[in-house]
Amino acid sequence: MEVIVHKYGGTSVGTPEKIKNVARRVKKVRDDGYEVVVIVSAMGHTTDELIDLMHKVTDSPDPREYDMLVSTGEQVSASLLAMALQNMGCPAVSLTGGQAGVVTEDIYKKARIKEVKLDRLKKELKAGKVVVITGFQGVDSKGDIITIGRGGSDTSAVAIAAALKAQVCDIYTDVDGVYTTDPRIVPEARKLKYISYEEMLEMASLGAQVLHPRSVECASIYNMVIHLRSSLKNDVGTYIMSPERILEECGKMEKKEAVRGIALDENIAKVGILKVPDKPGTAAKLFGALAAEKINVDMIVQSVHSSGTAADMAFTVDRPELKKAVEVTQKVAKELQAESVVSDSDVSKVSLVGIGMVSQPGTASRMFATLSEEKINIQMITTSEIKISCVVKAEQGKRAVQALHKAFGLDKVA
Amino acid sequence: MEVIVHKYGGTSVGTPEKIKNVARRVKKVRDDGYEVVVIVSAMGHTTDELIDLMHKVTDSPDPREYDMLVSTGEQVSASLLAMALQNMGCPAVSLTGGQAGVVTEDIYKKARIKEVKLDRLKKELKAGKVVVITGFQGVDSKGDIITIGRGGSDTSAVAIAAALKAQVCDIYTDVDGVYTTDPRIVPEARKLKYISYEEMLEMASLGAQVLHPRSVECASIYNMVIHLRSSLKNDVGTYIMSPERILEECGKMEKKEAVRGIALDENIAKVGILKVPDKPGTAAKLFGALAAEKINVDMIVQSVHSSGTAADMAFTVDRPELKKAVEVTQKVAKELQAESVVSDSDVSKVSLVGIGMVSQPGTASRMFATLSEEKINIQMITTSEIKISCVVKAEQGKRAVQALHKAFGLDKVA
Repeated sequence: MEVIVHKYGGTSVGTPEKIKNVARRVKKVRDDGYEVVVIVSAMGHTTDELIDLMHKVTDSPDPREYDMLVSTGEQVSASLLAMALQNMGCPAVSLTGGQAGVVTEDIYKKARIKEVKLDRLKKELKAGKVVVITGFQGVDSKGDIITIGRGGSDTSAVAIAAALKAQVCDIYTDVDGVYTTDPRIVPEARKLKYISYEEMLEMASLGAQVLHPRSVECASIYNMVIHLRSSLKNDVGTYIMSPERILEECGKMEKKEAVRGIALDENIAKVGILKVPDKPGTAAKLFGALAAEKINVDMIVQSVHSSGTAADMAFTVDRPELKKAVEVTQKVAKELQAESVVSDSDVSKVSLVGIGMVSQPGTASRMFATLSEEKINIQMITTSEIKISCVVKAEQGKRAVQALHKAFGLDKVA
Repeated sequence: MEVIVHKYGGTSVGTPEKIKNVARRVKKVRDDGYEVVVIVSAMGHTTDELIDLMHKVTDSPDPREYDMLVSTGEQVSASLLAMALQNMGCPAVSLTGGQAGVVTEDIYKKARIKEVKLDRLKKELKAGKVVVITGFQGVDSKGDIITIGRGGSDTSAVAIAAALKAQVCDIYTDVDGVYTTDPRIVPEARKLKYISYEEMLEMASLGAQVLHPRSVECASIYNMVIHLRSSLKNDVGTYIMSPERILEECGKMEKKEAVRGIALDENIAKVGILKVPDKPGTAAKLFGALAAEKINVDMIVQSVHSSGTAADMAFTVDRPELKKAVEVTQKVAKELQAESVVSDSDVSKVSLVGIGMVSQPGTASRMFATLSEEKINIQMITTSEIKISCVVKAEQGKRAVQALHKAFGLDKVA
């Protein structure tokens, strides 16, 4: 019997009524003759509420206890969904990550899944039950509860689907797919039927956070097709799969689109370190120090300073990390005898994403021309094979996205 | 190093502030050089809230999923308490019932604890940590989460204290001990310094529900001293222990009190089955049928009917079970060719409790005389070695307790 894996996010199971809706949808799939495994997130804002509670008893939460605490959210929604299914006459059982055989690394709060032991899961499926599994968690070698990072339920779903060799992993959420850009910014934004893992990763990590990036990474490793879709409708959403699969599915039609989507990240800040004496190892020193402080650096740009014997360097970080990043940079700047450190949190990052870009020259220049026409100044540029990112003034970010969406004809392609 | 076991009830950990208070108390004990194990209930009304949520998705909750759901309440309070302790510089770790080695029968919702495997617990204690354990739960042989009945955290605490061979199990709650009767009914009610297991069992099952009866039963088996006390004060509460231990502790002083406490149960109802033809096996038939329907029968009285060839039988049940009890009784009455079935939910049960009663004749007659002086009609009487119970009209219950409390001098004994 074919196994179908569904994942429902927090808003999709946010109330008892919504849980009953999910149960109806799940029951229908089972009635159609499939084995069904469902992965759920915590109801609505449960996780945030638990974290609020935590901050009322401690300033410095222990990661192990954090995991013990927040993992309860999914246990509540999983058991409620199993009961809602049973109440509709559909046999069901809920399993914690540990009971479902999800084994993680021994790292609290952000472990990676090592393995999914299928014994119990297969037994319950064989007994004719829908199996509801708590997302976002597993157990380590000691039997301690481990969570796998905020939004990790997507990753749980993909890992379990891969272990079960499911055809597809349906991820139900409150949006109905991946769009060419945020429809709140560009009303003409178009839902994509297919998007490749790499493109999705860039879109997701660039601010279009409908899917947890690690889930996409995991799906790409196991070549698991993700179907991202709305829990409120029955419509087809967006399939996330390998470029080869996409080509098989839709021929050449979509391939000619060099740019598949445009992402806006409004949560960044910029740090510059000016006139660093030009010696080998300076970059390694700076970014090593930032990494040691666990500061995630995104874009990095280095240019030769007009004087010829020194370089200017700039990089971006998540906005909440700016203060710490500046502190570290100032310390390193002193050691390196750089002239000064500057920072700016009033910036946004606009990115074009598309696998086709690598084979279609001219995309970058068209991007710069479009922004120039809009009198938008570009502060930083980085390019990769499937992405071009520009840092602009925060207030110009949305306008940049709108202009680029039109310039690249994303509203028109079928 | 001596190990101290504390248990805190739901109201004692009802808010983050209260959790911090508990942490301060626990830390003090550890700072005094003891190993400390803490068992916690769910915060405040969490369990009821989870059950409310459950009733919104199902009419007939599956016991397994019920356990999966409600066990999360203790996991939240245990992890929060561990974090509050850590925040005060006190090493701590929270363990679920399963992680703490609490193994139960394979019966959902009301399993008995079979065993406490101490490996992990001892390891954490040895590492210098306060161990906070979720009350009310363990795991079965399949690794499923099992709860042990409402109020079961008391039992968890006693079982864990017994396994650890602790000297005493401190149960902290929102009352400061066991009183001769409910102080809301008799303001002169006196806090008892000692009470025996048997007396406490009678008091507890008779309405003075400060302690879960099974915890007392478990304590009596392992001869574990329970110290029931307030989480808001530092006062000594009431010690619950064997009569031998009490005698050791306080000489003969308290022994002369025949009556130790008076309990009022206002949650009962009475069923009568009249003129049952006097044949062997009738009682077995009736109470067998009630037991088959899982109706808990408390007092049973049988008297010969005036006709001489038939008997009248009466019994009490918990008030919410009256309707079902009457239905079963009517069915059996028909088979037995009894004359009629009557019922009355407008009754209460007043009970005197005291181990000394068995050796002091006259307690019963003094009870009846006292009630008679108050013009309180006695509808049913049962007696045991340590208890005399009378069913009276509900509206007279409190007055009966007040009169008896005075008549037996319970306000005066030191």
